[in-house]
Amino acid sequence: MNEEDHLPVPETRVLAVASHVVSGNVGNKIAVFSMQSLGCDVAALNTVQFSNHTGYRQWTGTKVSAEEITDLYRGLKQSYLDDFDMMLSGYIPGAPALEAVGQIAQDLKRKAEARSGSFFWVLDPVMGDNGNLYVAQEVVPVYRSLIEHADLILPNQFEAELLSEVKIEDISSLSRAIQVMHERFGIPHIVITSVSLTHPGHPVSSLSVVGSTMTSDRKARAFKIVFPAIDCYFSGTGDMFASLMVVRMREAVWNNAEENKLMATESWVSDDGVDALDLPLAKAAEKVLASMHEVLTKTSEAMDAEMKKAQGQATAETEKKNGDDGKRLHLLKSKAAELRLVRHLDSLRHPKVDFRAERM
Amino acid sequence: MNEEDHLPVPETRVLAVASHVVSGNVGNKIAVFSMQSLGCDVAALNTVQFSNHTGYRQWTGTKVSAEEITDLYRGLKQSYLDDFDMMLSGYIPGAPALEAVGQIAQDLKRKAEARSGSFFWVLDPVMGDNGNLYVAQEVVPVYRSLIEHADLILPNQFEAELLSEVKIEDISSLSRAIQVMHERFGIPHIVITSVSLTHPGHPVSSLSVVGSTMTSDRKARAFKIVFPAIDCYFSGTGDMFASLMVVRMREAVWNNAEENKLMATESWVSDDGVDALDLPLAKAAEKVLASMHEVLTKTSEAMDAEMKKAQGQATAETEKKNGDDGKRLHLLKSKAAELRLVRHLDSLRHPKVDFRAERM
Repeated sequence: MNEEDHLPVPETRVLAVASHVVSGNVGNKIAVFSMQSLGCDVAALNTVQFSNHTGYRQWTGTKVSAEEITDLYRGLKQSYLDDFDMMLSGYIPGAPALEAVGQIAQDLKRKAEARSGSFFWVLDPVMGDNGNLYVAQEVVPVYRSLIEHADLILPNQFEAELLSEVKIEDISSLSRAIQVMHERFGIPHIVITSVSLTHPGHPVSSLSVVGSTMTSDRKARAFKIVFPAIDCYFSGTGDMFASLMVVRMREAVWNNAEENKLMATESWVSDDGVDALDLPLAKAAEKVLASMHEVLTKTSEAMDAEMKKAQGQATAETEKKNGDDGKRLHLLKSKAAELRLVRHLDSLRHPKVDFRAERM
Repeated sequence: MNEEDHLPVPETRVLAVASHVVSGNVGNKIAVFSMQSLGCDVAALNTVQFSNHTGYRQWTGTKVSAEEITDLYRGLKQSYLDDFDMMLSGYIPGAPALEAVGQIAQDLKRKAEARSGSFFWVLDPVMGDNGNLYVAQEVVPVYRSLIEHADLILPNQFEAELLSEVKIEDISSLSRAIQVMHERFGIPHIVITSVSLTHPGHPVSSLSVVGSTMTSDRKARAFKIVFPAIDCYFSGTGDMFASLMVVRMREAVWNNAEENKLMATESWVSDDGVDALDLPLAKAAEKVLASMHEVLTKTSEAMDAEMKKAQGQATAETEKKNGDDGKRLHLLKSKAAELRLVRHLDSLRHPKVDFRAERM
């Protein structure tokens, strides 16, 4: 039996542009491994090299400048290494670097113009969360100017508000925000990750993901997937989500009954007759959420065990040293909360889909 | 069934220090993925970020300075992220950076002193190949000074000559080189990768790997594994070999009948009574070579197909453009020769061992 027959995607070359951390699982560190594990040939352009993610509240390392990013891409081009099928861009530090990445995406897009559907850009517009901007203010307009070149964007609720300029307070304003983004930017596919609105028939503590692929006249075709929240904040979930969407979107389009047609269609946009719940985007999001839920559950369990051990140690040492116990505990907790992926590849490869796309 | 039960190693935290390329599979790009795929939690400290490996003869990117390397390690330490079970160091650009990496290894070694066998450093002394030095001359004495702190070194034939100052021309001088390295540096485990000497009873075109774990009085216990050569030069094979040795050495010691004893023994050195062919090092090398042979065979097959296609295209385009066909073909060939790993994980996880350790 040929192993390649079991892989979800055909040979796929992906350019992944995001941050690199030495220790831990965020940014390209988790995105590259996730996509490689599912059979993608990933080119990893790292925008920073930090010792660890910033959630630890202390780190060392350096950022890669806009010039270096552009130069690395030039290096790929001059050696015929820019033959990418897909691109994923995540956290980019600062407006000049983001502009450089935008130029790369647009160059790849131009090169693919003659062959519809031969290049697909998944853009995660990393700007902030829960009402807080964690990039410089001038980054926001750069993202606004780039969205029109992307094929799929993955804003969280706050980022969707920034892009659409619609305050999301209920299902109706959420739908409006999606419609505005389709219309204003012509962005074909949208998934809003982590929407915290209550949905009738689901527990109040549920979270949801809401997606839409626009029709030929830029009308939203929206679906939601509701899933149980896990009561802990994990860094890197957005990056893992985005990288799995790259793979599962490609898979869903590849396995589509009209495969040859859809893969050769600009931005892989389904015919107007296709229902929201039958969209490749919906199929992809279901699988991604299933993987996410399994990995987060396993991380949460392992974390509890690790923290019990660490807290025991910390208390014992504090008695002796009377040191900065709060800081130490925060650091240990940050490490314990790193996503557990490498020992749970089955959750990536063969997730059990329990949460299905529903009508909005 | 729990997936973790099928992984070759217990939870293992590895610090991997080597180069990073955006596109392709050498250095940390292949080492990190190989170890992650086999269940290791890998901290990846990248010593360069280049667009592609230098075998293409053109690349862009930057090196990480010795200060940055030291600073990244300081970042790990201050957040309790330096709890490594193993370390793998590969290509380090220049003497100051190598010294910085040596300091890191020695610091980890010191920290582990109280618990014998709790830290194991695999050092790949990347200096050159086939008689050519491809690092600065002043790097050689730095490596010589670091070997005594390592647990396992993986020189190729030329690097073994540089370290032992013995010219390897036949089995007898090869054995002498190994004995000299054990004695002079007290290095417990040695694997000389890619030895090109003829072995009685094997085809002339065969290659071999020769390994040894020293006894308590620093006497060599040497074995060889002979395998068929594949007629092509692939970049990254040394890095893949080294990363798989990290995993398989840990596995062999973990699965050892005297597991608890051996894992708690300084440098995992087997009792003097253990025969060369029964060494964990020999078991590990057998599995690594099996994986390598499978991946190289698959790479070679895919490469032939890709080059046929590329040569057809190149000829057609040359007729039109009369361009620099030789350069273009070299670049395409370099890309086609990138190790094919992501779609052949079974070769990593479940290699079929055909080549066995034999007496020297």
